[in-house]
Amino acid sequence: MMTEWEEQSFIWPKGYTSDAVHAKLRYSKLDVGWLVSEVPAAAAGVYTTNQFCAAPTAITKQLIQKKHTLQALVMNSAFANACTGEQGVKDVSQEQQWVAEKLAITPDLVGVASTGLIGSYLPMAKMEKGIQALKQTSNTLLTEAILTTDTKTKTLCLTATIGGKQCTFSGFAKGSGMIHPNMATMLGFVVTDCQIAPDCLQTMLSTLTDETFNQITVDGDTSTNDMVLLLANGVAGNQEVTTEHEDYPLVKNLYHLLLTELAKMIARDGEGATKLIEVTVDGAKTKKEAQAIAKAIVGSNLVKAAMFGNDPNWGRIISTIGATSATFDPNKVAVQLNEITVVADGQPVAFSEQAASKSLEQEIVFVHVDINAGAHSGKAWGCDLTYDYVKINATYST
Amino acid sequence: MMTEWEEQSFIWPKGYTSDAVHAKLRYSKLDVGWLVSEVPAAAAGVYTTNQFCAAPTAITKQLIQKKHTLQALVMNSAFANACTGEQGVKDVSQEQQWVAEKLAITPDLVGVASTGLIGSYLPMAKMEKGIQALKQTSNTLLTEAILTTDTKTKTLCLTATIGGKQCTFSGFAKGSGMIHPNMATMLGFVVTDCQIAPDCLQTMLSTLTDETFNQITVDGDTSTNDMVLLLANGVAGNQEVTTEHEDYPLVKNLYHLLLTELAKMIARDGEGATKLIEVTVDGAKTKKEAQAIAKAIVGSNLVKAAMFGNDPNWGRIISTIGATSATFDPNKVAVQLNEITVVADGQPVAFSEQAASKSLEQEIVFVHVDINAGAHSGKAWGCDLTYDYVKINATYST
Repeated sequence: MMTEWEEQSFIWPKGYTSDAVHAKLRYSKLDVGWLVSEVPAAAAGVYTTNQFCAAPTAITKQLIQKKHTLQALVMNSAFANACTGEQGVKDVSQEQQWVAEKLAITPDLVGVASTGLIGSYLPMAKMEKGIQALKQTSNTLLTEAILTTDTKTKTLCLTATIGGKQCTFSGFAKGSGMIHPNMATMLGFVVTDCQIAPDCLQTMLSTLTDETFNQITVDGDTSTNDMVLLLANGVAGNQEVTTEHEDYPLVKNLYHLLLTELAKMIARDGEGATKLIEVTVDGAKTKKEAQAIAKAIVGSNLVKAAMFGNDPNWGRIISTIGATSATFDPNKVAVQLNEITVVADGQPVAFSEQAASKSLEQEIVFVHVDINAGAHSGKAWGCDLTYDYVKINATYST
Repeated sequence: MMTEWEEQSFIWPKGYTSDAVHAKLRYSKLDVGWLVSEVPAAAAGVYTTNQFCAAPTAITKQLIQKKHTLQALVMNSAFANACTGEQGVKDVSQEQQWVAEKLAITPDLVGVASTGLIGSYLPMAKMEKGIQALKQTSNTLLTEAILTTDTKTKTLCLTATIGGKQCTFSGFAKGSGMIHPNMATMLGFVVTDCQIAPDCLQTMLSTLTDETFNQITVDGDTSTNDMVLLLANGVAGNQEVTTEHEDYPLVKNLYHLLLTELAKMIARDGEGATKLIEVTVDGAKTKKEAQAIAKAIVGSNLVKAAMFGNDPNWGRIISTIGATSATFDPNKVAVQLNEITVVADGQPVAFSEQAASKSLEQEIVFVHVDINAGAHSGKAWGCDLTYDYVKINATYST
């Protein structure tokens, strides 16, 4: 029997300190912050596949791939430090240097994450002032400092007993626009005091990303700065968790839940969104096809606009399914909107449009597709397409 | 030296008659029409790749692939007759039957095209009345009857001397939403009185579609009913054009121009659009990569919203390029917006945001990308993402 976990209000796990300040990168909100572990922590990461990978993302990736260890993370919003060439790389090194000096650690233990406008250099004088002002406190303001057009913080904190020790897992993220991770300006972090072997941490993250963060979309645009990092500093004092450890299934389930819920928070708070759309596809020949169909549906502008309008226009769902390369018989496809069957055997089923429309008014819409071609399932999450999405993105940089 | 062509106001070529009526499939506009050739015409087509291919599209495809000949086309808007199963197929046969009887021809010479809502059966009593009311006149009302959310007809008429004979090429199309052809509820037709061999006609169409209709996008959704058809009835009396004929280059150029211009009209009149976006990509390793990048850029919601807001936010263009799988060095990429260089060598170039924003106000925006990785070029066309797109699509069926 697996030990269970408990959700609790957001705190940092043992051995972590944090702070955030307003370094005037933007008009009024917190914009620079850090997270510091008292000891070097096992680190794992997944990163954007965008060929214009931002300097902070690229450098943090190199660090983790080399030593699988980080002790501090410095972050900023407002500027993504992407498409900034040599200068961008130098600026990241400078950030690492400032943080390392303050903490009396080596610069290669300092990860860097940036989010914001692409193609502007970081204002380094402001960054320096900001970093110098950071303290090692227990506040959780960092979860606010990384937000851009997000309307709320995205956090989840779980505790569980692992190897007889109480461990805390604290996840936080930012999302909003340019969200279509393949591993968005999407940043996600889960830090824990649990002791977990670095390769085990990386294996879990790589596996779980495919069915969590990589299954959300706000607008189909894959950012230059996407990154999800896990840190595990082992301060809880448990025996190190490896993939062979008896508590491994529990730890993996914990991360699955954390990554899924953070991903859903990002989808729900997509730019301009009024609701979360959860698509479940059953009966696919492969899991990959199930996930591809689910992601195609939440990615369709027409489906997203229909959901905003509470319009049970299932033709758009069917059309999206048909545009995928998945293997199935169009005459066997079934579609349910919030448990109302609208298509069976690939053909219309009579239903009350009024009742269906009413049900779409809720804050979470469930689309359920069965393509009856196999035994595999997949899920994806997205949001509706609204006037506010257009408004936000027609007036972002100027 | 190639003969030139002349553009003229829209008429039907010799040997064609047409008509359209209001069959009350929708509230007030023309919704059923036909086009009839006095003799069987060579026919070529390209069709949606959506797995839920609509009945009219599937059946017309079968007809053309079998006999490469059509004499009449019957069309309707309001209902797509897609996802309508057996009944949908029967209804198409019935339409063919009614038209064939009226014209005293065989049903397999009657092509059928439908566009509109997916998943509703055709109201056959109304269709019958509509078809029975059609006359063989010279009016061009058919170009209106196929429109759905289109704001204007899309037509182009060219004349040229082919083999010593005056030939007329009359192209018309409908587009608007669910436009991301891979071969959208996109319908395109070019009919001519020129005599052209059927295989030559099909070869030209298949080749040209890849760089014309397949390079436009309104919303990234590939419809169930997309179809582009060419008819050539030979009534002009010229010697049959084959791929070896000396006039073949001229004829191919004519079709290239017609298909490109119809495709651009569809992109410009995308649902809610205020402007046409033309993206040119140079310096790609292959033509396919150039076309893929161009189409990804016009397909990005963030780019489209920025264009609506006259926001020279080139970071979104760069990010979209980077998210493709094309082969290039990010440090060699250059981007121009209406001839204003905004990125060179993958990095920001100082420019007047005010001047750039001002230039984006024009009705056609030119995005020019050079990835400096090879000698191939590609183009794609799209439109901006506006409040009206959301409005139209949040309230379509209900």
